[in-house]
Amino acid sequence: MTGQGEPPRPAARRPATVRPLPIAVDTMGGDHAPGEIIEGAVEAVRAHGVRVVLVGQAPRIQRELDRHGVAGKIPIVHAEEALDMGEGALASWRKPKSSIAIACHLIKQGRASALVSAGSTAGVVATSRLRLKGQQGVMRPAIAVTLPTSPRPTILLDAGASVDVKPEGLVQFAALGTAYAQILLGVERPSVGLLTIGAEPGKGNKVTKRAYELLSGGSHGIEFAGNVEGHDLLSGEVNVVVTDGFTGNVALKTMEGTIRTAFSEIRGAMTASAPARVGALLQRRRLLELRERLDPDTYGGGVLLGLNGTVVIAHGASHARAITSACELAHRLAAGRIVERIREQVGATRTSRFGRWTHGERDSQADRADKADRADKTDRADRGPKSPERPPEPSRPAEPAPEATAPAGDRAAPERTEPPAAT
Amino acid sequence: MTGQGEPPRPAARRPATVRPLPIAVDTMGGDHAPGEIIEGAVEAVRAHGVRVVLVGQAPRIQRELDRHGVAGKIPIVHAEEALDMGEGALASWRKPKSSIAIACHLIKQGRASALVSAGSTAGVVATSRLRLKGQQGVMRPAIAVTLPTSPRPTILLDAGASVDVKPEGLVQFAALGTAYAQILLGVERPSVGLLTIGAEPGKGNKVTKRAYELLSGGSHGIEFAGNVEGHDLLSGEVNVVVTDGFTGNVALKTMEGTIRTAFSEIRGAMTASAPARVGALLQRRRLLELRERLDPDTYGGGVLLGLNGTVVIAHGASHARAITSACELAHRLAAGRIVERIREQVGATRTSRFGRWTHGERDSQADRADKADRADKTDRADRGPKSPERPPEPSRPAEPAPEATAPAGDRAAPERTEPPAAT
Repeated sequence: MTGQGEPPRPAARRPATVRPLPIAVDTMGGDHAPGEIIEGAVEAVRAHGVRVVLVGQAPRIQRELDRHGVAGKIPIVHAEEALDMGEGALASWRKPKSSIAIACHLIKQGRASALVSAGSTAGVVATSRLRLKGQQGVMRPAIAVTLPTSPRPTILLDAGASVDVKPEGLVQFAALGTAYAQILLGVERPSVGLLTIGAEPGKGNKVTKRAYELLSGGSHGIEFAGNVEGHDLLSGEVNVVVTDGFTGNVALKTMEGTIRTAFSEIRGAMTASAPARVGALLQRRRLLELRERLDPDTYGGGVLLGLNGTVVIAHGASHARAITSACELAHRLAAGRIVERIREQVGATRTSRFGRWTHGERDSQADRADKADRADKTDRADRGPKSPERPPEPSRPAEPAPEATAPAGDRAAPERTEPPAAT
Repeated sequence: MTGQGEPPRPAARRPATVRPLPIAVDTMGGDHAPGEIIEGAVEAVRAHGVRVVLVGQAPRIQRELDRHGVAGKIPIVHAEEALDMGEGALASWRKPKSSIAIACHLIKQGRASALVSAGSTAGVVATSRLRLKGQQGVMRPAIAVTLPTSPRPTILLDAGASVDVKPEGLVQFAALGTAYAQILLGVERPSVGLLTIGAEPGKGNKVTKRAYELLSGGSHGIEFAGNVEGHDLLSGEVNVVVTDGFTGNVALKTMEGTIRTAFSEIRGAMTASAPARVGALLQRRRLLELRERLDPDTYGGGVLLGLNGTVVIAHGASHARAITSACELAHRLAAGRIVERIREQVGATRTSRFGRWTHGERDSQADRADKADRADKTDRADRGPKSPERPPEPSRPAEPAPEATAPAGDRAAPERTEPPAAT
């Protein structure tokens, strides 16, 4: 564990609120890691003034920073391991020193405000759920993605973090989406649609029918616009579309597959004859622009909402530019105090007539993570550090955590008072 | 109630198996009813030798047939009422003399083999479930749609008939889809994928995880190809994709909306500048062909499988050509004895190790329909025909049902021995 370059600086000589905490960038996740990841992060620093801390193999990061001529200007936190792209949820247990786990640890310690990773979604979600934990009052986290609608993007959640969601969970997703849209789209009261199979209230499955009742009950600060259907996803009619992680993931991938197929068919049609090929040349630039706008590699990725810290999951195939965007987004969400906004929004749904659901309603994965964590602590207390079953905690980075005295900002209050992890 | 024109003829002077029963065409459903519906049916008769019987307002149908110069050549069965496009499931109770109800009655009487309607999907599904009933052993019906994949179409089911499906229901959908694909695609052992959110067996929600276990258990005549994801829907990798009616409907509408958006964006990009407009002209024909292939109005509509009779639901916006295709499809399925094939396929899943599910496992809508039907019969027996709550049976068409002595063909055995409905 080495801290290199410029460490996250103490905010001593200026008001603590002025400078947000840096974004922890996982340099080891993604198809083009670490080169493109580091290049994207450097660009975020250079061109957009985003503060970042790079997490990963320190020597390699060092070389890349040298190459970009910014050696010593961007802090590095070393991480031994990386989650492979093929690795799923279990890796979060097997690799407690993965770059993502270390990045989460930085957030918990108050040394970073958010995490950016292009690692496998399953691995990022599982690790950050395990390490950051769900924020108070939130039953289950959700991945929000931004759909390429015009003139204004539509936010779809959940894109796959939580399947088998209860109606009350969908109401909470509406609260998460509202908080997110307020920051991302700058809309005071974003309209929220419920994804189902017909516009009328009675349409849908058991879960969406009940969620419709709860959402249309009002009094929870959500601007509910009623049911929306699959073909409304790209129409831009609502700001936020709420669904469970199973349906949302199927819909999102269907959309991506359809866009790919449509473009490939169109390319075929446009180059099938000599006149068509001439035509294609004449349209080349416009179509490339369009393709880019609709390409998941450009708009792709998502934000995991509902944990004690914001996690931006970039597309696995992300090149530098996508990483720059992801860093900017993470910065914007941290500056907009997304975690606190979510707390307020979810609180508003809780104080309405559906106040009962926060008790005892946690999904099994989060439960397992919680239990494991409690077991971990018990383990340590009872049997000392030698217990072989105990997954080791990420070791503490070399520098002290100067920002721990800064205002909570994007961090949840309970985490701030936690003692440093045992080494 | 009038029977006009050439009635469905007795099959007396030729072997009963040679001439399949006619297709009952609902002339009153759809945005362009009855003109385009009748025109499409006439074309099916003229150009493809499909036998049809037209159900609807007899005088109007008569005029249309005059106009097409085929007066007296196509049988007509009068129906007083039509389901409005906006009407849902309840209409099936309120309108027992709707054209769809009468068409179902023709099937039950053995005077038609299948129904074609461009009416509202909810209305068609509810009415035909109520009137035709689920075929023996089938827990819940499913709508199969054909996706415009190349080189061979992919069949997706359920596209919206049954939401909240149990894992065993998904296995049955696999059986329905297998039977359908055998006839439609001419594949002996069609490959079946399960729509979920990851290729690995453990991915999905509770229902799909269990369905994966059941399907990969084998020994039920289904060629299970594992999980597929949203972006596989248009890749043509499997012949059949199985999902519940909620997810399937969302995916299908997402696909339709995405195709529409992509084409509209492309049109915009192609005509945005003078050179691009020239290019667009050069490509016009190819792109129109492509658009047509991907347009839901062309490939749209679906087949309701699992009832005692085949129901082809054409797209509400269907023009004549789509109705002609729907009639051809209904004819092909009837000739392929789809109901019997489904019985065999479902029987094969039943005799496997998952034999328990046919007992007591019916969805609530089918239950309600069954109970109502039993109540109806009890009612009639106990209190005579004057009970005001009893929905009146569709009145018996004027002609006798000569095909009732023909082999079961597309009908389920129990229906054949049923006495004619009370008038």
